[in-house]
Amino acid sequence: MSNDKISKLPEPYVDFDLLIHSVPNGDEKAVAKVREHDAQLTKPAGSLGNLEALVRHLARWQGKSKPTLDNPMVAIFAGNHGVTAQGISPFPSEVTAQMVANFSAGGAAISQICALHQLNLRVFELALEMPTKDFTVEAALSDKDCAATIAYGMEAIAGNPDLLCIGEMGIGNTTVAAALYAAIFGGTGADWVGRGAGIDDEGLAKKAEIVDKGLALHLGEKRHSLEILARLGGREIAGMVGAIIGARHKNIPVIIDGFVASSAAAIIYGVNPNALDHCIFAHTSNESAHQKALDKMGKVALLDLGMRLGEGSGAALAAVLVKTALHLHNNMATFAQAAVSGKSE
Amino acid sequence: MSNDKISKLPEPYVDFDLLIHSVPNGDEKAVAKVREHDAQLTKPAGSLGNLEALVRHLARWQGKSKPTLDNPMVAIFAGNHGVTAQGISPFPSEVTAQMVANFSAGGAAISQICALHQLNLRVFELALEMPTKDFTVEAALSDKDCAATIAYGMEAIAGNPDLLCIGEMGIGNTTVAAALYAAIFGGTGADWVGRGAGIDDEGLAKKAEIVDKGLALHLGEKRHSLEILARLGGREIAGMVGAIIGARHKNIPVIIDGFVASSAAAIIYGVNPNALDHCIFAHTSNESAHQKALDKMGKVALLDLGMRLGEGSGAALAAVLVKTALHLHNNMATFAQAAVSGKSE
Repeated sequence: MSNDKISKLPEPYVDFDLLIHSVPNGDEKAVAKVREHDAQLTKPAGSLGNLEALVRHLARWQGKSKPTLDNPMVAIFAGNHGVTAQGISPFPSEVTAQMVANFSAGGAAISQICALHQLNLRVFELALEMPTKDFTVEAALSDKDCAATIAYGMEAIAGNPDLLCIGEMGIGNTTVAAALYAAIFGGTGADWVGRGAGIDDEGLAKKAEIVDKGLALHLGEKRHSLEILARLGGREIAGMVGAIIGARHKNIPVIIDGFVASSAAAIIYGVNPNALDHCIFAHTSNESAHQKALDKMGKVALLDLGMRLGEGSGAALAAVLVKTALHLHNNMATFAQAAVSGKSE
Repeated sequence: MSNDKISKLPEPYVDFDLLIHSVPNGDEKAVAKVREHDAQLTKPAGSLGNLEALVRHLARWQGKSKPTLDNPMVAIFAGNHGVTAQGISPFPSEVTAQMVANFSAGGAAISQICALHQLNLRVFELALEMPTKDFTVEAALSDKDCAATIAYGMEAIAGNPDLLCIGEMGIGNTTVAAALYAAIFGGTGADWVGRGAGIDDEGLAKKAEIVDKGLALHLGEKRHSLEILARLGGREIAGMVGAIIGARHKNIPVIIDGFVASSAAAIIYGVNPNALDHCIFAHTSNESAHQKALDKMGKVALLDLGMRLGEGSGAALAAVLVKTALHLHNNMATFAQAAVSGKSE
C-alpha cells in the first residue's frame, strides 16, 4: 500500500509515518569485521549456517563490529479486545490479566524460558480494564489513542536492551491479527483465521465471519496501515508497532514472535517493507495463516516447532540461539590459536 | 534389507544383530503421566508443540513419568579414513586429531555450546593413527575390527547419561557416509555425495566416482547392514552404531546429529527400523543428501539451521531445546496454582 493513493493521513500518524520511512541503514562495516573474525574460527567456512548469519545480524543492526548481548529483553505487550464479546475465544477475557500476573509470578512458559536462559522479561499492560471497542460495530481505537499507544511502545523499550524480543498476550487477538492481515495483504477472513487458543470448527467459521464484517465496515476506502491498525485494533499490537520502530531508530535488533506479533510487523510492512530489515522472525507458528503472512513479507522464520502460544515464547527460544551464536563467535579458537591446519587452496 | 535374503551373517555380528532386533519398547505409562501433568499447565493444550513432544520422548525412553536431565552427554566419535588418500577433502587427515585436541581444549564450536548450556562433552578417539583401509581397494575394516568398535561404542556411554547426543569428527567421512547411504537405500554416488567441509565441483564429481567404485567392489552380493559398515567403513560410524544400540538397551534417549551421524542410524535402520524409535534427529544438515536420508528413514528433524559442521553441534542445540522443554514442564504453574481460568467446554 503506497501512501500516495491515500488522500489524507490523519495528523496523529504523521510523525510515525515519517519515522517508518526514515529508518537508518545497517552497518555493513561492522558486518565485514564479523566476517573477518568468523573466517578464522576452527570450522569449515559457513558450516554454522544460520548461527553465523545471526551474529552478522546483531553486528549490522547494533552497529557494532563486536556485538553484545549484555541486556537481551523480552517485552510482552498485553491488551484486551471488545470483539471478544462475539465469542471468538474458548478462554474468557479475564485470562489476559491473570496471565500477566502469571508472567510476573514466574509461572508462565515465557517466565521459565527467560529464567533458564537469562533473558530479561518486561510486561507492558495496556489498559486491560479498557478493552478496545468491538470492531464489527465501530473503530477499535480512535486515531489519537492508537497513536498514543504506538508512542508508549516506543518508550517502553527504554533501558537499552541490545536485543529485543517482541511478544504479546490478549484473549481474542488472533482474530484481530487475522483482520489486520486481511486488510494489509488482501483476502477474506477465511484466508487468515486459525484456531487460536483452541476454538472448534463452528468457532473458526464465526471468526472468519467477524473478520469479514470488520473489513466491510472499515475498508470502504483505501486506508494507511496505521489507520487500519486503529480501526481493527489491538492496543498490544499498537504497542508492538511502536517498539519495533523505536528499536530500529535506537540500533536494537528485534526478534518477532508468532502470528499476532507478526501482525504488528505487517502494519509496518504496509508503510515501508525495509523498516523490518532489523527483525528476525523467530518461528513459524502453528496458527495456520502465519506462514502465509511471512511469505507476504518475504520473511523466513528461524524455527518451526509447531508452537502457537504467543507471549514471546518463540522469540525467546530464537534469542537462545542468538546468544549461543554470539558465544561461539566470541569464544571459539582460531585456526592459529588451536594449531589446526586450514583448508588447502 | 531383511536378513533372510542373506545367506550367512558373519559370526562377529550375531550378537549385535540380535540386540538390534530385540530392542525394548517405550514406556507408555510414563508418557500418560506426562500428558496428565502437561494438561494442567497454564497454556492452551498443545500450544508448546514440539517442546511438549520432547518431554514425552524423554519419558517414553527413560521410562520415567518424571523425566530427568541431570547428566546430558554429548559423545563425539572420531576416526580416520584411508579413502582420504584419493583426495576427497580440502582438509588434511591430521585435522581429525587436531580437532580432537581442540574439543578438549575448549576451542571448538561443540566445546562452547556445551560450556554455555551445561552439557557434558566426551570425545572418543578411535585409533586415529590407524586409518581404515581405502574402500576403493579393499574392505575398510575387517568384520572383527568392525564388531569390536561397535562393542567399544556400546561401552563408551557408561556413566549413566540420561540423554545422549551423538556426534563425530573424521576428515573424509562425508564420503564414507554417502557410500553407506547408497549401499543401504540404493542409488549411486551422485545421489548421496555433497560438499562436506567445502569441496569444489571437481572434487564433488570425484567423491561420487569414489563412492561408485566402493559400491561396485563391495556390493556384488547382498550384504547385511553390519557387513556393509565394515566394507565401506568408518570406525567413528561403528562406534556411533554401538552407542545408539547400547543407549536403547539402557533406557537412554538419543539425539542424532547430522549427515554422518545419521549414517550410523541408517545402518541400524537397515537391520530394524524400530530400533531408532528412541532417537530424535536434531537438524537437517546443509549437506545436500541429508534430507533424503531422513526421508528414507521416515524421520523429521527438529531444526533446520543450514548447518554442516558435525562434531555433534546440531545435536547439542537440539539438546538445549530438550532441556528447555523439560524445564518448562517442571516449573510452569498449573491453572489452579496461578488462578488462571481454564478453557470453557
